Order: sequence, then structure tokens, then C-alpha cells
Amino acid sequence: MIGKIHKQMSHDSWLFSKMATPEYTPFVFLLLLFQSSVWGFPSCHATKPGMLNVHLVPHTHDDVGWLKTVDQYFYGDRNDIQHAGVQYILDSVVDQLLKNPDRRFIYVETAFFYRWWKQQTDDMQNTVKQLVNEGRLEFVNGGWCMSDEATTHYSAVIDQMTMGLRFLNDTFGHCGRPRVAWHIDPFGHAREHASMFAQMGYDGFFFGRLDYQDRNRRMVAREQEMLWRASESLTPPMADLFTGILPNGYNPPEGFCWDQSCDDPPIRDDPDLEDYNVDDVVTRFLHIAHGQALVYKTNHIIMTMGSDFQYENANLWYKNLDKLIRYVNQMQSNGSEVNVLYSTPSCYLQELHRANLTWPLKGDDFFPYADSAHDFWTGYFTSRPALKRYERISNSYLQTCKQLEVLGGPISRKGPFGAGDSETLSKCLVYTLSSHSSAMAVAQHHDAVSGTEKQHVANDYARKLANGWAHCQVLVSNTLSSLSGSSAPRVYCEHLNISVCPLTETSKKFSVNVYNPLARPVSWPVRLPVNGTAYRISDAKGKAVDSQVGLSVLIMVVICRSSITFAMTVIWKGVVLSLESFVSRFLGLDFLRVTFDPETGLLSSLSNLETQQTVKLSQNFYWSRFIPVISQFLVSALTPFPCLIPHPLSPSLHQNSVVQEVRQWFSPWVSQVVRLYTDSRALELEWTVGPVPIGDDLGKEVISRLDSSINSSGVFYTDSNGREVLQRRKDYRPTWNLRQSEPIAGNYYPINSRAYIKDDKDQLTVVTDRSQGGGSIQDGSLEIMLHRRLLYDDVRGVGEPLNETSDIYPEGLVVRGRHLLSLSPPATAADTHRPLAQEVVLQPLITFTDGELHPSTRLEFSGLQAVLPPAVHLLTVSQWDQDTVLLRLEHQYQASESKEHSQPVTVNLQKLFSTLDVLGVSEMNLSANQWKDEMTRLDWKAESGTHHTGVTNQLSAYSAL
Amino acid sequence: MIGKIHKQMSHDSWLFSKMATPEYTPFVFLLLLFQSSVWGFPSCHATKPGMLNVHLVPHTHDDVGWLKTVDQYFYGDRNDIQHAGVQYILDSVVDQLLKNPDRRFIYVETAFFYRWWKQQTDDMQNTVKQLVNEGRLEFVNGGWCMSDEATTHYSAVIDQMTMGLRFLNDTFGHCGRPRVAWHIDPFGHAREHASMFAQMGYDGFFFGRLDYQDRNRRMVAREQEMLWRASESLTPPMADLFTGILPNGYNPPEGFCWDQSCDDPPIRDDPDLEDYNVDDVVTRFLHIAHGQALVYKTNHIIMTMGSDFQYENANLWYKNLDKLIRYVNQMQSNGSEVNVLYSTPSCYLQELHRANLTWPLKGDDFFPYADSAHDFWTGYFTSRPALKRYERISNSYLQTCKQLEVLGGPISRKGPFGAGDSETLSKCLVYTLSSHSSAMAVAQHHDAVSGTEKQHVANDYARKLANGWAHCQVLVSNTLSSLSGSSAPRVYCEHLNISVCPLTETSKKFSVNVYNPLARPVSWPVRLPVNGTAYRISDAKGKAVDSQVGLSVLIMVVICRSSITFAMTVIWKGVVLSLESFVSRFLGLDFLRVTFDPETGLLSSLSNLETQQTVKLSQNFYWSRFIPVISQFLVSALTPFPCLIPHPLSPSLHQNSVVQEVRQWFSPWVSQVVRLYTDSRALELEWTVGPVPIGDDLGKEVISRLDSSINSSGVFYTDSNGREVLQRRKDYRPTWNLRQSEPIAGNYYPINSRAYIKDDKDQLTVVTDRSQGGGSIQDGSLEIMLHRRLLYDDVRGVGEPLNETSDIYPEGLVVRGRHLLSLSPPATAADTHRPLAQEVVLQPLITFTDGELHPSTRLEFSGLQAVLPPAVHLLTVSQWDQDTVLLRLEHQYQASESKEHSQPVTVNLQKLFSTLDVLGVSEMNLSANQWKDEMTRLDWKAESGTHHTGVTNQLSAYSAL
Repeated sequence: MIGKIHKQMSHDSWLFSKMATPEYTPFVFLLLLFQSSVWGFPSCHATKPGMLNVHLVPHTHDDVGWLKTVDQYFYGDRNDIQHAGVQYILDSVVDQLLKNPDRRFIYVETAFFYRWWKQQTDDMQNTVKQLVNEGRLEFVNGGWCMSDEATTHYSAVIDQMTMGLRFLNDTFGHCGRPRVAWHIDPFGHAREHASMFAQMGYDGFFFGRLDYQDRNRRMVAREQEMLWRASESLTPPMADLFTGILPNGYNPPEGFCWDQSCDDPPIRDDPDLEDYNVDDVVTRFLHIAHGQALVYKTNHIIMTMGSDFQYENANLWYKNLDKLIRYVNQMQSNGSEVNVLYSTPSCYLQELHRANLTWPLKGDDFFPYADSAHDFWTGYFTSRPALKRYERISNSYLQTCKQLEVLGGPISRKGPFGAGDSETLSKCLVYTLSSHSSAMAVAQHHDAVSGTEKQHVANDYARKLANGWAHCQVLVSNTLSSLSGSSAPRVYCEHLNISVCPLTETSKKFSVNVYNPLARPVSWPVRLPVNGTAYRISDAKGKAVDSQVGLSVLIMVVICRSSITFAMTVIWKGVVLSLESFVSRFLGLDFLRVTFDPETGLLSSLSNLETQQTVKLSQNFYWSRFIPVISQFLVSALTPFPCLIPHPLSPSLHQNSVVQEVRQWFSPWVSQVVRLYTDSRALELEWTVGPVPIGDDLGKEVISRLDSSINSSGVFYTDSNGREVLQRRKDYRPTWNLRQSEPIAGNYYPINSRAYIKDDKDQLTVVTDRSQGGGSIQDGSLEIMLHRRLLYDDVRGVGEPLNETSDIYPEGLVVRGRHLLSLSPPATAADTHRPLAQEVVLQPLITFTDGELHPSTRLEFSGLQAVLPPAVHLLTVSQWDQDTVLLRLEHQYQASESKEHSQPVTVNLQKLFSTLDVLGVSEMNLSANQWKDEMTRLDWKAESGTHHTGVTNQLSAYSAL
Repeated sequence: MIGKIHKQMSHDSWLFSKMATPEYTPFVFLLLLFQSSVWGFPSCHATKPGMLNVHLVPHTHDDVGWLKTVDQYFYGDRNDIQHAGVQYILDSVVDQLLKNPDRRFIYVETAFFYRWWKQQTDDMQNTVKQLVNEGRLEFVNGGWCMSDEATTHYSAVIDQMTMGLRFLNDTFGHCGRPRVAWHIDPFGHAREHASMFAQMGYDGFFFGRLDYQDRNRRMVAREQEMLWRASESLTPPMADLFTGILPNGYNPPEGFCWDQSCDDPPIRDDPDLEDYNVDDVVTRFLHIAHGQALVYKTNHIIMTMGSDFQYENANLWYKNLDKLIRYVNQMQSNGSEVNVLYSTPSCYLQELHRANLTWPLKGDDFFPYADSAHDFWTGYFTSRPALKRYERISNSYLQTCKQLEVLGGPISRKGPFGAGDSETLSKCLVYTLSSHSSAMAVAQHHDAVSGTEKQHVANDYARKLANGWAHCQVLVSNTLSSLSGSSAPRVYCEHLNISVCPLTETSKKFSVNVYNPLARPVSWPVRLPVNGTAYRISDAKGKAVDSQVGLSVLIMVVICRSSITFAMTVIWKGVVLSLESFVSRFLGLDFLRVTFDPETGLLSSLSNLETQQTVKLSQNFYWSRFIPVISQFLVSALTPFPCLIPHPLSPSLHQNSVVQEVRQWFSPWVSQVVRLYTDSRALELEWTVGPVPIGDDLGKEVISRLDSSINSSGVFYTDSNGREVLQRRKDYRPTWNLRQSEPIAGNYYPINSRAYIKDDKDQLTVVTDRSQGGGSIQDGSLEIMLHRRLLYDDVRGVGEPLNETSDIYPEGLVVRGRHLLSLSPPATAADTHRPLAQEVVLQPLITFTDGELHPSTRLEFSGLQAVLPPAVHLLTVSQWDQDTVLLRLEHQYQASESKEHSQPVTVNLQKLFSTLDVLGVSEMNLSANQWKDEMTRLDWKAESGTHHTGVTNQLSAYSAL
């Protein structure tokens, strides 16, 4: 094993520490079995310096699910919905590349490529390797999918990228490592994505969609290519990413689409036949090329020759592209100064780099995305809230599962409860591609968790996740059995969110195991549906645990480090006791106090008792009407003033020693529990919305709006993919003079984990349990969209309205979720919301065993030797191969946001795990497909005049430790 | 040259004679440069005798024009109209055949294959030759197109078949010779086509469309495969053709269409992915195969795996077919007795032949074709009457042009008026593929002259013909210049049909050359628009010619053998004299007499003055209303009783020494001239119809109906492709018990050159100038549809109503045509209508030179040494290559139809031509792609029990002479 270790530890106190300035990047460690090496640019065609060089990039954009499921797309099934079959695309492209060595192709989505690859013969695999080695087939982006940027969490994005890039690395070596990130379709672009891409070693990034005003300005100013400084915490150029906007989205120029799905005239160059059109084609092409050159800086321009699921019959494209290149370049002998060539994004990028220009700097992000004055793509921030939550909890499951695979060792994959699912991803390496990993990976696609897919496809993603989790349970059961020494059958109650768990509802004696995937203890309320009215509960040490039963729900708050089991026994069974229930003016315990307006029953104030601060705070639900043709992607354009949902009817207080709750019924389809746990620093608003009524033939969007006394001055804050926070200013964009056309939709932003408003004194932070859209339309106000139900398609391709029903909810989906509110002084707010958000993302896994515990059962276990420092988050613990574990640790505070925590910290990796002996450590880039110290990226000059040196040794500070 | 001659003449009186019994087959003679040889069946996959063998035949059906023009189809242009690109089909199929030697493909339309072939590299051409030699790519049918059967003339069909088959012979040798005729799409099937296919050496014939009642009966009786005895004149098995009806038209069985244009589920055989469906596919396939086996006789069944323009991305088909074959045959180990294999029609045919069964005999044809009780495809017999006439006259031009190329020799192709167009069709042979030959060849396609194409495509066919004729004119001018010794510019007046000819209208002195392409003298009326009122005309011998001028038209009747020039000089110019004009009760000259009803102005009787026979005869025009969705293909189903067009208004007589005319005006859009030339045995009805009014929002079909006193007893007669005549019986089909559902459309048949009714005494024959549809709905009545204008599409794919307008006729097309009526005793009727019809098909070419003729001009020329015997028609005289001429002579009388002419005749080939020395002669099959004495066809047993021996020596009677 040692022989495979890239860097052997020299002593047992191998440490890492943060840079002098607080930063915020995950550190990735790995013992790798393969040898990476520096990757050069592939064999690019020569360009002509004195000419306008047109880089034709043949490509296909293959959605990992959208109108059809990912497997339907792969096989070309359900072509009645959309003609698309990826298996044929790859067959055809390889054939056509072989016909002419000049031809090039790029491939992007490894989810599809992997499916295809494993069906190929050795001969074909060798042929493809040769094409990759010669740069004729180039992988671009290379993640399992092209992730959504508005609704994904960085944790899951890193996982899916790692999965795709690893497959490429294992299969093709360094020639398979993408140098360019390629997000041609996502509907707006997150700064955190750019930061991740930089940390994954990409040299550049291209995309297609941005605000139409932004694009127009950039075209005029020739600023469609820029340097994106994607982090306020990382020292440049660590998170600098060269970013280019493609000229036609990701489509070919008008009149030059030669796919089987297009109707543009082919090049008819046989003078014996009718309609010879070579002259016409050449003239039109030169006109377009010259026009495009006017809005870019160099004498190189790129044209994306392809689109959605194109190249299924690549001959059509290549036969005409061959002719186009031949006939256009023939004009050079007549004085034309246009040179056309087959190219790839990395070859194009290389030419831009060679141009040695300075590029404008970009510091904010590309949200929201509007394709015209009244078409803002902000609805999908919230679309399919149930799927968005299911994806988020599935990530928690997956991380837990991965941790337990590592902690359980081989027995996790083959133990008393069966064998975990895995498959050999490539022929050289054993690699566990679990159903759950791949289900989560495809769920990151920009038409998956985004909610922009068809209903049957959304169902397929959910089904895949459920199936993945079912497979994971075998692994979890094996590990927990091994760690506890008890092979008692382990029960999973996946419907606790709707208070369903047959075991707890019937058993008089059972035990509950709580596994905490975080690297520090959490206090977590356990709420179980029960039949008894009082329970005796003892923790792992035999100590009694306080609990309360009310309305058939047993509630206890447990504090757990890693894995802890509680024994629970009914001591009283009979009529449910009704708890004290009355209208109350306030809830309040140790940390927080909320008051309610006695007339309306709505919240009226929130106080932090520790800091002695109070803000006026009301909260209500509103909905906006949808009359126009609007659906998955877009948010309402027509009703800036939403309809108020009436005050709650007879709100009631329920309180006991564990929790205080005010239950509010606003209407038959909107209710809320305002909840405060005894030791919590966050007020929980558990909202339940649905079925959204459509009897009035009006679609509706439902928001929860907080109105406070905070003087937010037109500013609020949202996170980017769950990591860094960006400031948002009303009716304003940092990089251009906005002409605001939509007072609400034009001020909506994605909220992945939190949003806040603040003034000098007070910061009100809302932590969400899933991605949602929101805005601050009035000062002191923060609104978050909860649910949407629409009756018209928005003509963006989906072809069906977003009108979710299910077997259980034929009248329309009912969605429940939580907003966690905290009030703090701005300087210390992150100390609360950072760990709080992580607790919501990685929540404890609760499992059950029935009956009496065997006396020898081990009731408590921690995988860590010690709690990690508060600033350090355990992002990834995952089995890499038989003897290797992938570990990602991240500093979870942004620079300057916390006086206490935005500081360097040191972690002893050797003493991290309680049961694993760490023999050696190698540091990797973020996506674990490159040694950190071999990571070289192109250097780019920003227009400010600063020249950023290469990043070769940017992280030397710690890799040298 | 001698060395190339297959059979050298042994003496100068080499003769051929007819068999003892009168027959009716063209004799084809040629000096060939290439050596044909006996062609074996290609390498067919082994079948399993004890099993049900399913022959999968991958194929594409590529219309040589339909919704798009032939060149648009070839290139894949105008894919907005229909997605189809033949260049890509052939690219893709060749690629895919190379991937798996088991795979098979058939290709049919040489018009497309030729276009593709000449764009290929030598390497690719060699690859394709290899595929053909190995039987992996098989040519089927192989004509330039898949001709229409209802509206084509045999002369043009033979030409287009010869052209395609010659290309295949020249390019691929004997492995390229199709053994199977394949008319999977034509809308009904002509017996004459079957006869021609037999004479072309085909072993079998497959088609897809037949009457639904006929099919149902044949399925039950297992008579979908039969022996078609396609001639009443030829001794069996000379015109016997094994004929099979395909199981699904030409489509794959339901659920098994894997083309890119289909939505059937692909075979998903990766158990790791969703929706594994191999079991389902296999089960469904076995079910279909067993079902199909029930309606065929042998343990072999055929499935056509393809359809219109399929295989553009052949990978989709083959990848799934490979899997289908693998998985279905895998079931054999579980006891399945179904064996699936890649196959071709000839491999399937071979297995049917090996079965050594007897097959039912078929003697009539497959017209009319109905796909359901009220959908008779009989409208297209008449659709686009202007195009149908233009195609017919273009054939006359083409035959004339070919003759003059031979007579002119090399100077015809390069002379004072330029070079004729020709191209090298293959690398081994010089072959003249003139624009006109190929225009005529594509015009034979079943969506060309049929009128079932879109308007813009019909325009393209017409444009191609016009262009072809323009090219031919160079050749004609060169030859006439050479033969006459005068290089005076030659003028062509192509609009004589509408009395437009600038030269004759302005010149005071000009000459007219009349070239007669028939092998015997004809008396032909020349009608020229002129400005003068009297002309002095002298023929080649200086003799004055009688002529008359009336209504600005000069009329003379000339009798010409081959080529004769008349000098014409204005002797009187001034006011046009008005001719005698009055209502007359009769017209009558030497041979015929017609009377008119003085009250209605309509015809009332017709007499043959030679035979002293008279029939009552009236004639009128009718139209039927079209309210339903009906167009190109179908004929009206809803109005069995057509609307009578009112009596003619003030009919007028015009007569002089040359002609007598009664002019009838029925309405502003229907008129007619009843015309009798002095020495004519036929009464001419020159009808003019259009623009058909549609102001009432009703489409209309216009017929001319003759009602006579002939006691026709529910029977009438129509020709088949201009050759043999078939009997038609009202509400009756010879091979099944018809349930008549459409009293008119169900009794309509194609009329290509003639139709007649008769009783014991009288036969009234109408010779038409183009293909039309007609019927005899009442005894003694004969109706012929002249014109159609419709406002709704018939949902058969065309997607536009048949509503013809043009630049000249924006209000709707005006169509003019002629019906030539003759009355004879039945026993001698053919003596009149046979030569008459040939005169209409091959009409004299009239050309002009301006001014005085040079004294040395040769005014008369005949290419023949002597007139051919009356029974022998000179079908083809055409340059084959530099030193070889293709000659087709046919006996033009059907067996028994003429006492005088249905007899054997003898022609001396050596003394046939006046200017050509015949060095040697080889006899060929009808399509000239096989030596006659090497023509071996499979022998088939008819159910009657008669065993027809091979045809190897069927023609020995004359080849031994």
C-alpha cells in the first residue's frame, strides 16, 4: 500500500493550517492509486496570425434528464416526447471522427459517456482512447452532469464533478482531464461554481446564458470574455477563472445548423444538380464571422456547432462542416482573410491566452437571468420544492452512508444485511459507483433539482434517489451492526416528516439510534409518532432523557456526537393527553423570545435574550396570481402586489419542557407551526403549503414574508451554493446600469441555505432547508417563495405546466418545510448561522431496532478521536478504493465574517479518526483528479493591470508543511 | 468493332420472325461492349429448415421526388418540408454494413444511387463494389426510379429501367443486376408492368399496395404469393412473374421501427439501466412472426425493416436489429422455433422457390386500389392533366431526339449548333446520359407523372423536361443541319398548342420541317398561327400543298415518311377571312360522318362510311362536387351523379377543304372543337377545360362522357401502359367477390392510350393523348376524367390540395387535349386504334427555318430503307455507345385482336436503315442488361398443376435463325 502513496507522512504530526488571512476552501486529501501528470493542450490545429480565425466547435448538449429521463435519453427511448438518443450520438461521432483526422468533438456529460463506454468492445475502447490521446475527442467540463447553479449545494456539486472527472482520469489518464468548464445551458451562473471550477484546476469557463442587458453591454464593450474573481476569501488567482460568453448561446449561427434536427440547407456543391449554393453559403458565413469578430477582442472567434442532443447522425454535420471549411478557406486565394478550423474550447482558450491581453474583472455573479424585459428565470429557484428538499436530505443520507462505509470497513459492503451495490467503473480500478452516488449526481443536473424538467422526469429523479437510499441502507445497517455488535434488524422510518413510522407507532419497547454526520456535537430534536402517552427513555449511559408526548408525537431533544442509541419503553399507554392550549402573547425560553399580535395572531417581535436585542417582526403568507403563460423557469411578471393570505384562525400554543409551539391556520392549504426548542438559538417556522387551490383557474406562487424594523436600506444577502454570501441590492447590478423592468422577479435571487437582512445593530438570518427563491422588495422585509402551482407552460421547452400532483396528493402536492430564524448583531451572526446551516444540510440519521437491546450492544460510538475545531467542516469522508479514503476538510467561515472563527486553524490528520490508521496523505485539487502540487493553471492578466502569476505554488503554504 | 460483337451475322439476310402464334413483345438488339454472364444468387444467410425463418430486409424507400424535388431529397435540402436526405442514407448504410458482415441492405432507386456514386472516392467505390460482390448490398428493381403503373407509357418505363439497369451493369457487373422487381409503393399494379419485368429477366416481384378486400381474401386463403401470368399474347412462362404481397406495405411490423423517424422503443439490454425490455421485445416479436406465418404458405416470412427515406442514420436500425436477431435466436435454446436472419428479397425468393410449391395464378391486374371502402386511389389517373400531357409529348421529343442522334452520327453531339449534353456515367464506358433522358426517367416516378406530388415538385419535373428538351434541340438542329445540308438557324415553336409561334406569325417566307419518328408514313395536320391569309406551300418535290387559313391559323395536312420540309410563302396578307359559320346537323367526309342534335347542339350519332355502321352517340361534360377531404390520390366518393354542364351555346361549324370543325362553348371554362380532317378515320374532340371555378368553395372533377347505343353489357376495355388491353366489368373483379362500395370510383380504371366499348357489331374506341382515368358506369357509356381541381388535401401525405395555378393561369390551369374517336367492327378495330395511338404517342416534330431555303438544301430524308410492316413498331433507336445502337422492334398487335395483323412478321435488320451499316447484332432482354440467350429465370409451378419450364430457350425460335 505504501508504494501507492504519493506523499508519505514524515512524522506523526502532519498538520495543515489556514493561510495567514482567513480563507474558505476545502482541503482535499487522498491516497491515490494512479499517477497523474501535467496535462498539455491537445493537438490544436494551426491558426493564421494575420487572419480572423474561426474556431468551429462541434458539440452536443445532452441533458442528463429533462423532457425524458436520463436512461430514456441514453437509449433514445420515448422519441415521441423528444427525439434524442445519446448512445447513437457517441456511436456516430466516433465513426465520423475516424473518417477525417481534422475533425474534432467535445463531450461533456460523463453520466452518458459512462453508460456508453461500458457497452463498448475493447477494440472500440482502444479506438476512443486513441482519439482522446490525439486531441480529436476532448472532454470538456467532465462532471457526471452539467449541474444547476441556482439550486444546488456545493457539497453535492463537488461530489458529482469528482465522480465524472475520476472516471475520465481512470479511463483516459491525463489526456482525459478537462481543462475547460462548460456550463452552456444553466439559467444564470453562481460565483461559487466559478470558485469551485478554479479550485478544480480548470483554465477557463464558457457559458451561454446571461441577462440580455448584460450581454448587450458586454457586446458593445467587447467584454464578453473576462476574468471572474470568484471569491472574496481566497487570495487571487486561487479563485480566478477566465470566463467567456459564447456567441449564440450554444447554438450554431443562424442558417448553419446541419444536424438532422435542423432544416438549414445543406451545402450543395455538385454543379450537375439543382440548387448549387456554395457561393451563397460562403458569403453568408463570412458575413456572420465578420459580425461576430466585432464583439470580441481577439482575432479568434468561436462558434458552437451543435445543440441539444445533436450529432445523433454526425455525418450530416461533419460532411457539411468539411465542405464549409474547404470552401471558405478557398476564398483566401481570392483575398479573404478568414480562416476556419475545427477546434475545441481548450484550443480556442489557448489562442486567447496567447493573445496576451488584459481582461475585465468580474466580482459578482450572473443572477438573476432574464432573456427579455419580462422574462426572468427566477421561478425555478423554488420550482418543485418537495424534490428540492428530497434532494437535500438525500445528500445528507449519502454523506452519512459514505462515512459509515469508511467507518464500517469491508463489512459495510458485505455484511449481515447483504452486499452494498457497487460496480467496476473502469477496468484498472475498483471504484464504488453506488446507486445513491449516481442518483445524487444526476440530481444535480440543471433540469433536475432545478425543477425545470417534466413531471415524469422529476418522478424518476425521486425514484432514483429512493432506490439509492434503499441500497445505502444495507451498507448503513451492516456498519451499525458491526459498530454496535448487534445484528438486530434495523428499521428506517422515511416518513417521519409526515409523522408515520409503523415501528414507533406500535412497539412498546424499541431503541433509536441517532448518527450525526457532523464533526461536532449537535442538539437535535427527535420527533416520533407514537401510540403511547408516556415513555421511559434512557441514553447510552443509562441516563433518563426528558421527552414529551403530545398529539401522538413523542418529542425529545438529543445531543449527540456521532452515533448514539436511546432505549425507549412505553410507560403509559392510553388516551392522548391534551396539552395546555391557549392564545399566547409570546414564546420564550433561554435564548429567544417571540411575541405575537393578539389581534391578528401573527408574529410581532423577535428578541435575542443573550444579546438583549429586539426587532419588530411580522410574518405572513402571500400568493400571487398567474394568468399568463408561465411555468417552471420563469417567475410571475404580472402581479407585483401579492395577495395576502388572511390572518391565522385561532392560533394555539402548545408547550412543554422540551418545546413551545404556536400553531397557525391561515387557510385550508396554508398553516404554520412557530416552534422554539428549549436550548435552541433559532426560531423554527415550520410551514405547510398545499394543495394550492386552482379552482379559480389561476396558478399561484406562495411566499412567506418577514417584515421587520431592520433598516436594510435596499440591501439583502444570499448565499451562493451554500458557501460564500453575496450582497444583493434592490434594482441594481454591480456590473451594469440596470433598467429594471420587473420589480419583484427582477429582484429575486437563489437562496440555497440562507438569506439575511441587517443594519448596524441587527441581523435577521433565515436558514432554509432547501433551495428557494427570495427577495427583499421593501426595506426590512425578506420574502421567500415556498411553493408554486401553475396552469400554463412558459414556452421554454418543457411543454407542460408546473402543476404537481401525486398518488398521495391527487389534489396537488402539499409541501412542508422549515425556516430557522436567528437574530444577532451582524458581527457575530455567522457564528450562529454557519453551524446552523450545516446542521440542516447534514442532519442526524435516525434508525430503529425493535424490542429490548441485547446487553452487549455498544450504545455509543464516535468515528472521530476528537471534535473538529468550530471553523472546520468535515465535508467528505468517502472510500476511494480498497485502502484509500477521500477526505475533504473545509474552513467554513468566509473571510472577515466572524471575528472568532474567520481565522486559520490547524487539524491533525493523523489523530482525526478513532478507528482508522492513516499511513499517508496526498493533497489533491478540489475535484481529486490532480495532485495539488501538480496543478498548473493558465495565468491571465486582469484589466486593472495586476498580473496574477501562475497558481503553481499558490497553496505552497500548506503543502509545504 | 467486330471483336465486340456478341453474335456476328452469318449472312446478309439475318431475319427475325414472330412465333407461329401472334405475340406481342419487343425485340431488343444490341451490339454490346461488355460481357454479361449468368448471375447467381448472392450469399444468403443459411436458414433453418425445421423452423419459421424470418427474413429481415433492411431497406429505404426513396421517392424520386414527392414532397420535395429529387435533388432536394438527394441533398437533404428543405427538411422543413420533410426530413429526408439520400446522400446521408447511402453514406450511413455503407458505414454500417462494414461494421458487421451479417448485415444486409437493398437499394432500389438508381437515380439517387447514381448521384451519390459520382461523388464518392475511388476507395469508397471499391468498398461498395466489394459489398455488392459479397451480396451485402443488393440492388433491387434498379430502374432509374420506381415507376408509376397507372399513368405511365411502356415506352418511357422501358427507357428508365434500361437507364438504371445499365448503370448497375456497367458499374458492378453481374453482381449488380437486380433479380427482383420491387414496387412497394405504387398505388395499384399494371399487368403490363409485370409483363415487362418478366421480359427484363426478373425472377420475382414484390409490392405493398392492393385492394383491402383482395388482401383480406388472400390472407385467409394464403394467396399473398402467386404467379402472375401477365400477358394474353406471350406463351407462358415468357410473361409469368412470381409476385408477392409484402406483409406490412413496406413498413416494419408495429412496434419495430427503429429509424430516427420512428418512436418505437429501442432494445434496452443493459440491466444496470432503467427499463430493461429485452423480454418484452422478444415476446412481441415472436407473437408477430407467428401471426404472419399464418397468412403465408411456407416456413419463410419476410419483414420489410424500413420505410420512406429511412436509414439516414442506419446505426439506429442495425444496432437494434443486431440485438433483435441475437435475443430472438437465443430463445431457440429454450425451445423457440423461430429463426431470424438478415436477408434480401432475392434470398427470400430463393427460399420460396426451394419450397417447390404450386402457386395460385393471377391473370388480371391490381386496379383500382382502395385502401378502405370509400378510399379509392383513382383520382391520380387524371391528376395534373397538363403535366401528364407534357410528359407524353416529352417522350415523343426524346424518342425523336434519340433517333436523330443515331441518324446524325457524331455531328449530332458536336455540330454547328453546339455540343449535346452527355456525361460519363461510369469509368469504363462512354454513355450518354442526357438531361432529357434523365428528366424523362424521373418523370416516370410514381409521384411524378402520377400527379401525386406537391405543386413545387410538379413544377420541377416540368422544368427538368423543358431543360432536357432544350438540350435535345441542339442535337436535333445539328442532325437536321447535317441531313439537309443547310445550317440555317432552326426554330422550335413549343407553344403551337396555344397557337403561338413568333416566326410563323411574322415571317412572309419560311419553311417547315416535319420529322416523323414512326417507321411508316403518317398523315398529320399541321396547324400554324399566321398573320397572312393565304400561303403558297410547296413540298419537297416542289408540289403545291393544299392549305387553309382561318381564324389566323394555317392548316394543312401533310403525309410524311420520315423527315420532310415544306416551303411556305405568304401570298395574301390582310384581313382574316371569316369562314362559313353556321349550325350544322352533320360533319362528314370520306370515312366518318357525325350528326348533331339541332336542339342541344350535342353530338347525336357517329357513322363509319366505309363499314356502313352507325351508332347513336351523344357527348357532354359533367362535373362532380368535392366537399370532403379529397385530393391528389383519391377520386370523389360522395357524388355518384355528376352535375351536367349545360348544352353548348350557339355551336358553329367551320369547314374548308382540309378540315371541318364544330365549335362548342359549354361555359366560360368548358369548350370543345369537334373536328374531322379530310382523310382521317378518327373524329377529334379537342376539349378545353379551365380554369375550373372554385368561387363556390367546391372542388370539381370534370369528365367527358360519351353515351352510345352500343350494348356494352357492363363491360369496357382499357389498355395497360399503352400496350395490351384488359377487359373491365362493372362492379366486378376477376379474382374475388367484390363488395362494391363506390359506384363510380370503384369502377374507374387507368386509361393510358385508349379505351373502348363494344357489342357484337360496333366498337367505339377513344384514343387519348395522355393518361386519364375513366369508366363505363352505364351500358353504352364511356366517361373519361379530364381535369380536377380540389380544395382539400386527402390526408395521404401530400399536405396540400390539388389546386393548380401558374403564372400564366393565376385563376387556375386551363387544360386542352384530344380524344380521337373511331367506330369499327370489333374484329378490325385494332387495325385503326393501334396505329392511331402510336401516332399520338410519337408525333411528328415540326421545326422551322426562316426565309428562303438555300437551293442546295436537301428537303426529304428517310432513315429507313423501307417502311416497316404494319405490325412492327419501331420502339427504340438509340445510340448505346460510340459504335453501337440499341434497337427495339415490337409487334404492336395483341394476339387475336386483328385478323390481318396479329400474325408473325419478318424484318430484315441488315436492310433496315438507310445510312447505317449493320455489322452485327446481339439480342438482349427487354431492358438490355442481359444477353437474351443467357437469360435464365426461376421456374415456378402454377396451381393449375402445369409446370412451366425455364425460359432459357423460349425464344430459340428466332435466336436460332
